[in-house]
This record gives sequence, structure tokens and C-alpha cells, in this order.
Amino acid sequence: MYEHYWQQVGEKTTVVIRGWQHMSYFSDVSNICWFLEPELAEEIARVHRVVGNAVTEGRHIIVGTGSSQLFLAALFALSPRDGPEPVSVVSQAPFYSSYPSMTDCLKSGLYKWAGDAQSYSKEGPYIELVTSPNNPDGNVRRSVVNRSEGTLVHDLAYYWPQYTPISSPADHELMLFTVSKSTGHAGMRIGWALVKDQEVARRMIKFIELNTIGVSKDSQLRAAKVLKAVSDSSEHGGTWEGVESFFKFSYRVMAERWKLLREAVNSSRIFSLPEFPPAHCNFLNRVFEPQPAFAWLKCERDIDDCESFLRGHKILARGGKHFGVSPKYVRVSMLDRDNNFNLFVKRLSTIHL
Amino acid sequence: MYEHYWQQVGEKTTVVIRGWQHMSYFSDVSNICWFLEPELAEEIARVHRVVGNAVTEGRHIIVGTGSSQLFLAALFALSPRDGPEPVSVVSQAPFYSSYPSMTDCLKSGLYKWAGDAQSYSKEGPYIELVTSPNNPDGNVRRSVVNRSEGTLVHDLAYYWPQYTPISSPADHELMLFTVSKSTGHAGMRIGWALVKDQEVARRMIKFIELNTIGVSKDSQLRAAKVLKAVSDSSEHGGTWEGVESFFKFSYRVMAERWKLLREAVNSSRIFSLPEFPPAHCNFLNRVFEPQPAFAWLKCERDIDDCESFLRGHKILARGGKHFGVSPKYVRVSMLDRDNNFNLFVKRLSTIHL
Repeated sequence: MYEHYWQQVGEKTTVVIRGWQHMSYFSDVSNICWFLEPELAEEIARVHRVVGNAVTEGRHIIVGTGSSQLFLAALFALSPRDGPEPVSVVSQAPFYSSYPSMTDCLKSGLYKWAGDAQSYSKEGPYIELVTSPNNPDGNVRRSVVNRSEGTLVHDLAYYWPQYTPISSPADHELMLFTVSKSTGHAGMRIGWALVKDQEVARRMIKFIELNTIGVSKDSQLRAAKVLKAVSDSSEHGGTWEGVESFFKFSYRVMAERWKLLREAVNSSRIFSLPEFPPAHCNFLNRVFEPQPAFAWLKCERDIDDCESFLRGHKILARGGKHFGVSPKYVRVSMLDRDNNFNLFVKRLSTIHL
Repeated sequence: MYEHYWQQVGEKTTVVIRGWQHMSYFSDVSNICWFLEPELAEEIARVHRVVGNAVTEGRHIIVGTGSSQLFLAALFALSPRDGPEPVSVVSQAPFYSSYPSMTDCLKSGLYKWAGDAQSYSKEGPYIELVTSPNNPDGNVRRSVVNRSEGTLVHDLAYYWPQYTPISSPADHELMLFTVSKSTGHAGMRIGWALVKDQEVARRMIKFIELNTIGVSKDSQLRAAKVLKAVSDSSEHGGTWEGVESFFKFSYRVMAERWKLLREAVNSSRIFSLPEFPPAHCNFLNRVFEPQPAFAWLKCERDIDDCESFLRGHKILARGGKHFGVSPKYVRVSMLDRDNNFNLFVKRLSTIHL
């Protein structure tokens, strides 16, 4: 979906790296995150300032190989040292389908997946993952366990104005972001964490050292260039050297896609979609309803396995059980290329019982 | 050390990546390693063919965020499913100092560090790490436990002709390599594994999916370009468009450095270095003694803590206890920039008791 925008921008985000450049492990030995390129740190702080979606003052910025690595680093950093048993990791269902397998992959003695946060009632320390807007269903989320011994990880990958109104700068202890969802550059594998507590930051950095000894410099430099273009285009308001601003483009495409999808769903009478309350976005300075990166589609009537039902109509989607809920739900990406998205909507609208 | 070479090569290894290129998570959906760029796969196979240091036929090539990630992926893939206890991970001392902390970092229920392979005597399955040439001491290594229930990981990061004679193509079940030690590009964080068994390969790929959802495409493309230059320059023999071949350059620099180091060590009479038997290198077609990437220096006489002793003379080195042996030993990098290396040798040669 974003490819088309970056083609319009042209050579302004081209990176050129020569064979003898950026060879060392180190990026900035004066920073506790010694593998973070200073240019990237600067552009991360700037884009949050421009968009107003997160506080960066008084935070450590930690770069990761995608936000996946930072999620694992956060679990490592927040687990109690030498606890009698692994700390419980919970998230309100429906939750991101990879959380359970990522958490339990190595059968760690430090942390353990404990399922839906809403039914979590164990005493003692726990880690709650708060994804807002939520993957898969797009809802704005807050923590639900709310006990004194909990620590929170806020996964804010989708807290950008093309997906949801930006109501205020997020101001949590540990927040995760990624270029794959903000600018569309999944192949770079670049994410970042904003972390208040220095000791937590230090342990996250230690994890990344032990896991991959830092993060690709080439992709960090490229991510810096792309984020710079996002900020530059936003600061120019309407157009930027003949190109629409990044968030105006992406907001517009998402709005069009959600309009097409809702029309198709309404015409079929077999499916339903979540309804979202409209809210004011301080960045775009308008009121709109969230238009998430995923459609959380429900099969109504007596269709119990929505994933199989859709597969029978040549639509690939991920069933609700992966997200900890009923198989009547599926998740469908709203970020595919135009052709694929249009084909999906067309196929969906022609399904009749 | 390698920077100077790549400057001479000039623009031939420059990468140019545009904003709209390589945005997807996927590189090649027809490959079981779906995040491996085909260009990189091709250049990995080619450089091994040109150098003759590893068999790639009938192997799966898996790319990782440095060989660190592939080491962890190998532990995950080789651990027995649902074993009654974590499998033991061993390596002959002196071993790479990060093996114990990387292995035990998450207190995995799948695998556990069990120390020096030479004193390992437990029954049942185990994983033995064979680093050859060895980090820290440069020796050619073979497995030492040799029991039927063992699986082996061969870390061949230093099996390149600037460090050691290439006697034959390595032909093991699971072999690890990295650009950081072969071409000097540590900042790319690109390593690769050559894996015979398909099921092991599949599990390693699964690990990388759960850990970082693939590997930076930007760095993969840059690594492909650099490896291509290494192969091109080698195939041209003496010189390549006015530039010395990569391995002739790096062999020559290592030979000079080892000569200077041995002179300094001999003049001081306080230290000793390992002696290596000369062997024939099929690639360079000459007989030479190994000239490792690290000097494994021993303090003689009554100096028990070599690391502290050297620190007193403004030389930073890593003490033997990190590698599972006596503090009379230290490891010093032989790959630093010319100025730093020359300063190290100068300081070393002026130490007298």
C-alpha cells in the first residue's frame, strides 16, 4: 500500500552506502544504546514531536531488529531476577497471535505466557501487554489487570494518524514502535522502544547484545532517511515539493479502503465489523473513526469457522482461535497492494448464503 | 583493518536502495528460508566455491542477524522436543566467552550451558560447539566428546585464508559463518548457516521468525555485493582492476601483524604465544602457519592476572577466566585499525619486569 507513496517521493529517500562505511559494531559509544545510529535517534524523536503521538523527553531510545526483538528484550528486562517461578505474561483477548509463541518459544524460566488478561487472577508479579490500537481488532486499549505488582509493555505499532485519531502523546513506561507499520518498510526490520527507567533500558540493551550484537546499521540509516521524509512532508502541511504529505496520503487510502470494505460487508449480510467511536485527531485536526490496519471480521448466522468459510471463497484470513477468541472471527490485512485489496473486497461482496 | 581495502575497491561495492524498494517482509516465498535474498544466497554459495572452505551442495542456506542469532537458532533447533530436562551445551575450553551467557540468558528449559567439553561425562543427548579456528586461541578444532547422542554446531567464522590454511572444504551437518570476520563488515549484522538436515533448517528458520521475523534486507543486499567483490577479486588472481585480491591483501596484513607481534613478545620475555604447525592452503597455494584474528597471550613467570597486568600498561585485553581457563591468559584482537594495533605492539614491547 505504501509503495506507491514512496515512488512519488522519488530519490529523496534513496540511501547510498559505500563498501568502507559503517563497518564497525559500534554506532555511538557515548550512548548506553551503543548500537543506535545518532541520525536514527534524532529522527525518531523528531517524528514523535511532529505527530504528537509519544513523549520522548526523558526516555531512552533503544533500536531493535523489528519491534519483535524489543518485545522479547522487554520480557527479559522486566522479569524479576531469581524469582521462584517464571513471571506471568498476559494480554487482553483478542491479542496479537504471535505473543504466546514468542513468549514460550524457549520455555524460559524467566517468563511464561498466561493468556487472557481479563481472566487473570494470580497473585504476585506479572507483565501485561497492552496493544493500542489493538492487533487484531483495532480498539483503543488500556491495561485491565491493574494490580500493584504488574509492569506494562505498550505496543503502539499502530498509534499513527492513518489508523487512529491521535488524542494525546502516549506517556507510558515502556513503549514499542516499528517502521513496518508506520512507513510500510517491513523489510528493514527496524523497531524502537522508548523506555523511562534506566535499569530496564540497560537490560533490554544487554538482551539485544546477547541476541544479535546490535542492529543492522544499513537499515538504521535507511529508516532515518524515511522517517525524515515523513516529518518533512508533515511539516509542509498540504504538499511537499509536489508530493502529498505522508499521513494525508495514508489516511486517505485507509479511509477509502474502509469505506469499500464496509460497503461490501453491508451488502453481504453475512459478516459484521467492529464499530468505532469517532474522536478528534490533534495531528490531522479533524474528527474521524479509527480505520485499523486489520479488519476484524465476524461471520454471523451459523458459520462457526469463519477462516474455513472464507478459504472456500478464496479469501485467506487468520482465524480467531489464534488470537484467543472464537473461530467466528478472522483477521484480514488492510495494507496489501491495491490489486489484492480490491480482489478481496470484490470476492467478499459476492458471497451469498 | 579491512576499511583500507574497501576504500581501494571504491564504488564497486556501493549499494543504492530507493525508498520504495524491498519493503516487504518476504524475499523468496519459494525458498524454505523465505526471508533470504536470492542474490545473497547465490554469492554465499559462490564465495565458498571460490575459496574452497565449505561444501554448500545439498545444504540449506539460512541467513541470520549475525551468526549470534544463528547460534541461538541452532540451539533451539537441535534441542530435543519435550526432553525431561534441558540438553547440555558444551565446548572445549578455552571457548568463545559469550557462549555461556548467550546460552543461559533466558534460563531456557530446552538447553543449558554445561561448560568445558573435555570434562563432560554426563549420559544422554548433548550439543557440542566446535569453533575452528578457535576463538580465542586460533587452534584448529575437532569435536572432543564423540558420543552417539551428541549433535554438533561448527562455528567456522574464522575459516578463511587470511587466518588459517584452507586444507579442504568443511563438510559438517551445521556450519556457521559471518561477514564480520570474513570481510570485516560487523555493522551489517549478517551471518549464514549451512544446514544439511531439512527439519533442523526448518526449526532454525522458525526461531528467526519468532525472534525478529526475518533479517534486514538492506544489509543482505549489501553483503551480497561485498561477497561478490571478494569472489571477483579472487578469481582475477593477482590484481583485479588495479586492486589486490581481497585475500592476498588480508593475508599480507595478518602476516605482517603476526610478525610484529611475535617480535615484540620475544623481546619482552614476559609473554608467550601459541605456536601453530604450518600447513598447505589449497586456496593460496602455499604453506603457512595460522595467523589468527586474536592473539592468545600468556603471561609467564609469576604474573597470575594477565588482564590486570596489561591494564597497568595501558593495554586492554580480555582475561582467560571469561574463556573458561586460567587468568594467566588474555585475548587481544588482531583486527583493529593500524594505529591501534601499532600502539599495542609498541606498548607490549616496552614492558620489562
